[in-house]
Amino acid sequence: MDQTSLSKLDPVMSIEELNRFIEREFPQVNAGSPPGQPTYSILAIGDGSASMRLEADERHLRPGGTVSGPTLFALADITAYVAILAHIGPVALAVTTNLNINFLRRPASGRIDALCRILKLGKRLAVVEISMMSTADGEMVAHATATYSIPPRTAPPHAVL
Amino acid sequence: MDQTSLSKLDPVMSIEELNRFIEREFPQVNAGSPPGQPTYSILAIGDGSASMRLEADERHLRPGGTVSGPTLFALADITAYVAILAHIGPVALAVTTNLNINFLRRPASGRIDALCRILKLGKRLAVVEISMMSTADGEMVAHATATYSIPPRTAPPHAVL
Amino acid sequence: MDQTSLSKLDPVMSIEELNRFIEREFPQVNAGSPPGQPTYSILAIGDGSASMRLEADERHLRPGGTVSGPTLFALADITAYVAILAHIGPVALAVTTNLNINFLRRPASGRIDALCRILKLGKRLAVVEISMMSTADGEMVAHATATYSIPPRTAPPHAVL
Amino acid sequence: MDQTSLSKLDPVMSIEELNRFIEREFPQVNAGSPPGQPTYSILAIGDGSASMRLEADERHLRPGGTVSGPTLFALADITAYVAILAHIGPVALAVTTNLNINFLRRPASGRIDALCRILKLGKRLAVVEISMMSTADGEMVAHATATYSIPPRTAPPHAVL
Repeated sequence: MDQTSLSKLDPVMSIEELNRFIEREFPQVNAGSPPGQPTYSILAIGDGSASMRLEADERHLRPGGTVSGPTLFALADITAYVAILAHIGPVALAVTTNLNINFLRRPASGRIDALCRILKLGKRLAVVEISMMSTADGEMVAHATATYSIPPRTAPPHAVL
Repeated sequence: MDQTSLSKLDPVMSIEELNRFIEREFPQVNAGSPPGQPTYSILAIGDGSASMRLEADERHLRPGGTVSGPTLFALADITAYVAILAHIGPVALAVTTNLNINFLRRPASGRIDALCRILKLGKRLAVVEISMMSTADGEMVAHATATYSIPPRTAPPHAVL
Repeated sequence: MDQTSLSKLDPVMSIEELNRFIEREFPQVNAGSPPGQPTYSILAIGDGSASMRLEADERHLRPGGTVSGPTLFALADITAYVAILAHIGPVALAVTTNLNINFLRRPASGRIDALCRILKLGKRLAVVEISMMSTADGEMVAHATATYSIPPRTAPPHAVL
Repeated sequence: MDQTSLSKLDPVMSIEELNRFIEREFPQVNAGSPPGQPTYSILAIGDGSASMRLEADERHLRPGGTVSGPTLFALADITAYVAILAHIGPVALAVTTNLNINFLRRPASGRIDALCRILKLGKRLAVVEISMMSTADGEMVAHATATYSIPPRTAPPHAVL
């Protein structure tokens, strides 16, 4: 079987463990954030899901206060990465192979919440969908689906990536 | 505003009206179906959504009993078309401009249910997502997102397309 | 290295070998074709590429003579499958994991040529793009990109799939 | 006809005019670039095409020197925007509605060239594909297709957007 039944998708990492892993391995995610206000923060980890919040500042905005496309792409990609990591643990490095994003509406503000749902978590591939909502009015501003390649899990469980 | 708030997405056509419209305008959808068992049938219409059932027969199966990719593509496309039609009425002809489909698992049987959710219904574009589940075990077998172009609604409301 | 340099992409199967493989393993591809006129036929195999012709008949047409979306999807999928098979040989069974298709124009006729170009041929994934042109006027009618999962090549080279 | 024949796709803006337009309307594109070395620069404008160069610096790199996904997304999006603008002129504001990107290989260096080809330039929608190549070895590192919505061209031809 090249997949895990979605009904059995229990997370194996806590928010605190994920935060520590990301700070150590991907410090650039929140590089340049205003002091005390990380650009990307984990809101919740659930069975087969993860949600994150983007606090956009001037670096992420287009004229008129619209959050830029690359910023929404990054939000989708990071939320998906966190969701997968939360369910396979820090022993493997997932790589984005495909991301398809639909831009639906101009966000009403710079605070966007992303909810990622794992559609498939196989041995080699994970497929996810991500909904992005403006917190100002709850409207969906963008939607993405993405595929991640998962390397063979031959590393010892305490390997440091 | 180039969009309808999703909280206001009320269907304007019933299942019966949609069935009559499709039989008249797209008889090929169920052409070749076994007598009394349409290949594609509408299960439900909801606020911003529609669901359909595929009863695959030998024409749609690959060796081993797997439903073929083009058949799942057609299921996604038809369900999306019905969902949009149900909410804009039979006065306009939506055209598929983009469809992105992820194949997740081999279906356990030939009966697949599709649920389409409208993500955006604008004046010119509609964006939807479609989940396809095998009825045998409830597992998602494929997931798609699609964009439809909606022509200018200048036709009189009782025009026959 | 999880990839083959594209400059070294030499085909390992001829058109005749591919035709025999498809007739034996996928007879449904041309099932129902008019006598002596296969719906799908291979035009050419090149370094990192393959091209096929679709001869659409009434089964594939929408009112007005337009080739249906599922038919164009199938053309893209089959051409990609043939291109990959031509370069990895008949020892492995590639499976479509993602296909993204853009519909550009209504085809002027029912004869469509598809050209598939391999963008990446890795150990585990192949990524391709497919251009589909109406032979009547040479205009591109649809364009697709697709990803295929390639199973571990542990089978003996003369295995029959 | 909702499209321009691709054989007639002549650019209507020069590189200099495009550079001035982008500096005035999208100064954030090259904000933060090292002095005298813009991150994104236009290489060429052709019939139905445009090419741009990315000079990635530390802001765009992941550990190991890999150009980040959001940076490649931005490169694809900007190149597509420039290609469309070059062919419809500065009178209309195209908006990205969909972008699908496949990541193929880790780039060998931080200099990436993108070539955008317009597949369709209609009244309401433009569809493009973008190939991204590492200049170090000429290998394709990513490939994208994208759709842009073009607003009604009712503005006077000398309108300033």
